[in-house]
Amino acid sequence: MSNQHISVAEEAIALHAKRRGKIEVTSTTEVKDGKDLSLVYTPGVGAVSSAIAEDPSRADELTWIRNTVAIVSDGSAVLGLGNIGPRAALPVMEGKSVIFKEFTNINAIPIVLDTQDTEEIIAVTKAIAPTFGAIQLEDISAPRCFEIEERLSKELDMPVFHDDQHGTAVVAMAGLLNAVKIVGKDLKTCRIVLSGAGAAGIAIAKLLHAYGVEELILVDSQGAIWNGRPGLNPFKQELSAYTNPKKLQGELKDVIEGADIFIGISKPGIVTKAMILSMIQDPIIFALSNPVPEIMPEEAKEAGVRVIATGRSDFPNQVNNALCYPGLFRGMLDSGVKQVDDAIKLRAATAIASFVDMPTPERFIPTLFDEGLHEAVARSVVSK
Amino acid sequence: MSNQHISVAEEAIALHAKRRGKIEVTSTTEVKDGKDLSLVYTPGVGAVSSAIAEDPSRADELTWIRNTVAIVSDGSAVLGLGNIGPRAALPVMEGKSVIFKEFTNINAIPIVLDTQDTEEIIAVTKAIAPTFGAIQLEDISAPRCFEIEERLSKELDMPVFHDDQHGTAVVAMAGLLNAVKIVGKDLKTCRIVLSGAGAAGIAIAKLLHAYGVEELILVDSQGAIWNGRPGLNPFKQELSAYTNPKKLQGELKDVIEGADIFIGISKPGIVTKAMILSMIQDPIIFALSNPVPEIMPEEAKEAGVRVIATGRSDFPNQVNNALCYPGLFRGMLDSGVKQVDDAIKLRAATAIASFVDMPTPERFIPTLFDEGLHEAVARSVVSK
Repeated sequence: MSNQHISVAEEAIALHAKRRGKIEVTSTTEVKDGKDLSLVYTPGVGAVSSAIAEDPSRADELTWIRNTVAIVSDGSAVLGLGNIGPRAALPVMEGKSVIFKEFTNINAIPIVLDTQDTEEIIAVTKAIAPTFGAIQLEDISAPRCFEIEERLSKELDMPVFHDDQHGTAVVAMAGLLNAVKIVGKDLKTCRIVLSGAGAAGIAIAKLLHAYGVEELILVDSQGAIWNGRPGLNPFKQELSAYTNPKKLQGELKDVIEGADIFIGISKPGIVTKAMILSMIQDPIIFALSNPVPEIMPEEAKEAGVRVIATGRSDFPNQVNNALCYPGLFRGMLDSGVKQVDDAIKLRAATAIASFVDMPTPERFIPTLFDEGLHEAVARSVVSK
Repeated sequence: MSNQHISVAEEAIALHAKRRGKIEVTSTTEVKDGKDLSLVYTPGVGAVSSAIAEDPSRADELTWIRNTVAIVSDGSAVLGLGNIGPRAALPVMEGKSVIFKEFTNINAIPIVLDTQDTEEIIAVTKAIAPTFGAIQLEDISAPRCFEIEERLSKELDMPVFHDDQHGTAVVAMAGLLNAVKIVGKDLKTCRIVLSGAGAAGIAIAKLLHAYGVEELILVDSQGAIWNGRPGLNPFKQELSAYTNPKKLQGELKDVIEGADIFIGISKPGIVTKAMILSMIQDPIIFALSNPVPEIMPEEAKEAGVRVIATGRSDFPNQVNNALCYPGLFRGMLDSGVKQVDDAIKLRAATAIASFVDMPTPERFIPTLFDEGLHEAVARSVVSK
């Protein structure tokens, strides 16, 4: 570990220890005497509860739900750390809560679960749902995350969004929309190789398909995925129906040859200079493995790459989910839209991409500090 | 409804609508640039999560848990409103959260549940527990609340406290300790009649027994409870073993005759002037049914009562759970004590009672605005 990393780690631990974590629950109303108390609590609160009991829709107006999201995680797939369990995942969820609050003023409550059973996660999330206006699923490993999200989306009358899938997909799509402008290509006709068929990889593949990309090849640990490959799980099987039209087989190094775009959401260092050199002239590289990318930007540049994005904040063009989810939830909560479909995701990606006027290799993905970005994402939920 | 009530109701609804509820989640740390973000979120947060994964006890220091309580309710027994369900119960839980924050700076998260099944409530609460440092159970109807609390106390390694039972019991006990000083009696030798064998009634009975009260008669809808009465549920059966030593039978009006103290936690208006007059000279009346007491203070006074407590904030001497729970949780979280036993409850009651130097009929129960009260309750958790 470099000195710089040690220092960030130490600084981060000191920051977290300073006030025991990063978030708190505060009151939006003063309680300085019995009068205040009689409005906030009994007897006044009785009238508020009665009003909601009579007309449940009034909870939107009289409680915190329309500004409140649960961040639900079982701690099974946390950052680059893997299955570290609920308590160790809590600082990550607190971090997401800070981002929600700072950028779009949403109350986000970490809910870390002492279970990694699919049915239990679904049951628990449904049981606590009346407390919230929306559910963000976070750091739940594939393939369980697919069923959990699908079931909860169907069974709950509120937005349910698995950020590791769709947040990543929306921001990667935003980056790709701008990246192709730099090299003067049409994304739909690019040949794209995507390494990693986990939660994010599959979501990116689906969104690229929804956008109209014609030639997309997914690669997992067994090599290229093709329609008919033995042993595919149901999620990969579904994807194989509309990806890899030429049924290319082989390892990454075989199928990356001649590709326009490489997207990695898999493992550190799996892309070599030789692979890059086998791609088409002026290739686009999204090396999103975190914290160590599939190929380091310096190395990619040595192989002639101009347009590269990573998942890291210390390089330009970070594919950062936080470009998407704060604004997306703001838009969902404000509009009352309850299902996040592909059209919404593509509009959000376009809204994010539009924050870079003239994409260049130095800047084709905006940052989450760009003024108005989160508001624009929020508007994109309903605007056509 | 009087004009005053309409006005409190309207004012309360306006207050709740003003900012959509009463609480929010805020960040304790600023995020103004990428550097801040790298500490709050990736890559810095990875070191924090890793530290907890290696040594789970560090979650106490590096996350919000040691200052955070879940307020879990199924909305089955809310205030005087009854079974109004989770969303309608939410304003009450938000109110509790405000009180926690204002008085002892605890983060309290309402968790309202879309289930009223005992096993499901236990399973859900256990599943979400790693998010919190303690559990407050709230407005869950009897007798389910007894099993839920008992099981969770055993199965979770954190404080679990059903406020409707023990908060009420602690504050009633505090009031009684002072009330007997006014009339110059020893609580242990008083004959006490307690009407209402629900969650709070049973908890008060148990705490009076733990304190050493010798003659306590519980009355439910079927009349006095005596050892051997047919059809007693297991909770009442347990109590019958050490209450009503003379096995008195009959209705409230029969057993209240000659009693020193009446405690009602049952139904509006069930105590008449005639009953009061049948009690011993200078009786103590705790008429805690809310919002309408078992007998109104004016009526009780007409029957010669000097010492009366109610559950209402608009009369003196309110038995208000909020005198107990903010300080009690503060003390539990700070000390790391994980089981709320009778000794702790009695120490908390004594701490609350001690806030009135010279008990008089006008003031023998302190208010939650009394300076230092919550801190004293917190200290009582560990001080002998």
